[in-house]
Amino acid sequence: MFDEIKATRNVPDVNNVWKYLANRPKLLRRFWNELNEVMAPGALDPVVKELIYLAVSINNGCDYCIASHSVSARRAGMTDAMHEELLGVIAIANEGNRIAMGLAVPVDPQFR
Amino acid sequence: MFDEIKATRNVPDVNNVWKYLANRPKLLRRFWNELNEVMAPGALDPVVKELIYLAVSINNGCDYCIASHSVSARRAGMTDAMHEELLGVIAIANEGNRIAMGLAVPVDPQFR
Amino acid sequence: MFDEIKATRNVPDVNNVWKYLANRPKLLRRFWNELNEVMAPGALDPVVKELIYLAVSINNGCDYCIASHSVSARRAGMTDAMHEELLGVIAIANEGNRIAMGLAVPVDPQFR
Amino acid sequence: MFDEIKATRNVPDVNNVWKYLANRPKLLRRFWNELNEVMAPGALDPVVKELIYLAVSINNGCDYCIASHSVSARRAGMTDAMHEELLGVIAIANEGNRIAMGLAVPVDPQFR
Amino acid sequence: MFDEIKATRNVPDVNNVWKYLANRPKLLRRFWNELNEVMAPGALDPVVKELIYLAVSINNGCDYCIASHSVSARRAGMTDAMHEELLGVIAIANEGNRIAMGLAVPVDPQFR
Amino acid sequence: MFDEIKATRNVPDVNNVWKYLANRPKLLRRFWNELNEVMAPGALDPVVKELIYLAVSINNGCDYCIASHSVSARRAGMTDAMHEELLGVIAIANEGNRIAMGLAVPVDPQFR
Repeated sequence: MFDEIKATRNVPDVNNVWKYLANRPKLLRRFWNELNEVMAPGALDPVVKELIYLAVSINNGCDYCIASHSVSARRAGMTDAMHEELLGVIAIANEGNRIAMGLAVPVDPQFR
Repeated sequence: MFDEIKATRNVPDVNNVWKYLANRPKLLRRFWNELNEVMAPGALDPVVKELIYLAVSINNGCDYCIASHSVSARRAGMTDAMHEELLGVIAIANEGNRIAMGLAVPVDPQFR
Repeated sequence: MFDEIKATRNVPDVNNVWKYLANRPKLLRRFWNELNEVMAPGALDPVVKELIYLAVSINNGCDYCIASHSVSARRAGMTDAMHEELLGVIAIANEGNRIAMGLAVPVDPQFR
Repeated sequence: MFDEIKATRNVPDVNNVWKYLANRPKLLRRFWNELNEVMAPGALDPVVKELIYLAVSINNGCDYCIASHSVSARRAGMTDAMHEELLGVIAIANEGNRIAMGLAVPVDPQFR
Repeated sequence: MFDEIKATRNVPDVNNVWKYLANRPKLLRRFWNELNEVMAPGALDPVVKELIYLAVSINNGCDYCIASHSVSARRAGMTDAMHEELLGVIAIANEGNRIAMGLAVPVDPQFR
Repeated sequence: MFDEIKATRNVPDVNNVWKYLANRPKLLRRFWNELNEVMAPGALDPVVKELIYLAVSINNGCDYCIASHSVSARRAGMTDAMHEELLGVIAIANEGNRIAMGLAVPVDPQFR
């Protein structure tokens, strides 16, 4: 598996997350296959997918994922300005979410 | 405020979230101003911003926000294929987050 | 147990959460005892405790708890102005949390 | 901006979160302005606002925010006894939230 | 796909979640395959897997998942007593999590 | 209290979480009593309870709780294979939760 990861990503060594998955072969295989399938270019650009991955990781407070996907988002094309706006959208979305939930706002008929 | 919202969005009536904020004028003003500033076109396209907003709302489980921003994301250009991929990235990110946190994977030096 | 709840709260009937706990007697007993002990007046006023309970419930997106503790917070003295400020603090805290986590800000030495 | 923060808070240096926001000027300006407006004395005392901010930060698991706002809550008047009760309310609220969600308790008519 | 789901589960019709995934064929295929692989009997009994799935769903506040997996957990063997204890463990874990995070307890050396 | 904890667990010293609770006697007493009552053998085996506790801790991102309960789960009988499957179920549950919430799937009548 590690050889496949190194070849796919063209890197001399794999990241810690893969090493920690080494003795969990089924979980490693499933996660690696799904990750490659989902993050491949498609209707969404790779950089957009990385931004969404990073947004979820920040919302879940996963330090490892924030660190690693901040780097992979940069590699996929995320600029400083895009990063600043990403954080701005995450912030306002969390704000809007809590306001709507706190006020128990019913869904408008036109949104159903 | 409602006149300003109707004029800005060119709609005959405002959504429920604004009506529920009507008697909380400071919160309404702050949220409206920040939302307009953050979601305006910039380094990220409006549709990308809507995708990120939707990703956060799904992660927080805000029914109102999921319903309303699914519509606004559609209006900003989200297609069925983009929606499917958005859900796929949210799903794999949540999976990766829990795996990395569950294994207490230390951040690789190259990610710092 | 229901007689004890009615007597303590001076109400003719118990809320749904207690009815749903009726056939889970150990969980009901533990939750009721702990709730009474924790929410009793102490170093924090009852209304402040209700505000904190409501803040947590909004953050967790628990519809039942938001509805019931919005009412109990009102009864404990929460005014419209206090509610608006509560939502404002929850909103900015969520914003600040995501920014600090997203930027992986290290804790300042003076905060340890 | 840093001069304004130092002057407002009467401190010789700014905390890490502001330094990390230095090269994200729009996000920094928005967050700073909103934070000052929201946390200012109003219908809720500053110490109550700090308790709510801290409750949200603990619920979101933001290490930086827990560390910094534990200190600012102390400065605003939080005593050991208040801190213990804060943790108690956060604990029971999380317990009550999961019980109500786990049992899918419907909202009582009188709470609507 | 629906024929495969009906045959695998021996049911006359599929649940709503599969219907809503119908026009998202790649996401449907991936989720169905992974679900079957993960939830199959293994080192953990199916009922234990259902309890863990339910615990996560309650923690995330997913109404649909709580409803559907409460039923599938019952079918896999969950009794009333097991359900009560499940809720008790979820409650105390959330309590312990917030206390440990709120106090910023450092990990003991023997746990690393 | 510490003597009671040492005697109950048959250990020479208590873990950090108890030391950090030392000067919060009411919270310490409540958490200790509830933990012992909930985690005792019952309708669910101790190892199953530990797996559920660990699942919640991973979902909440509590580093301390993940570290300490990974150890206590091992002591209660969790094998490598069980740990791998635990992570697999947590991962697919988070995936399923986000898909169901993101699509706003209505609860099937037979699940109510």
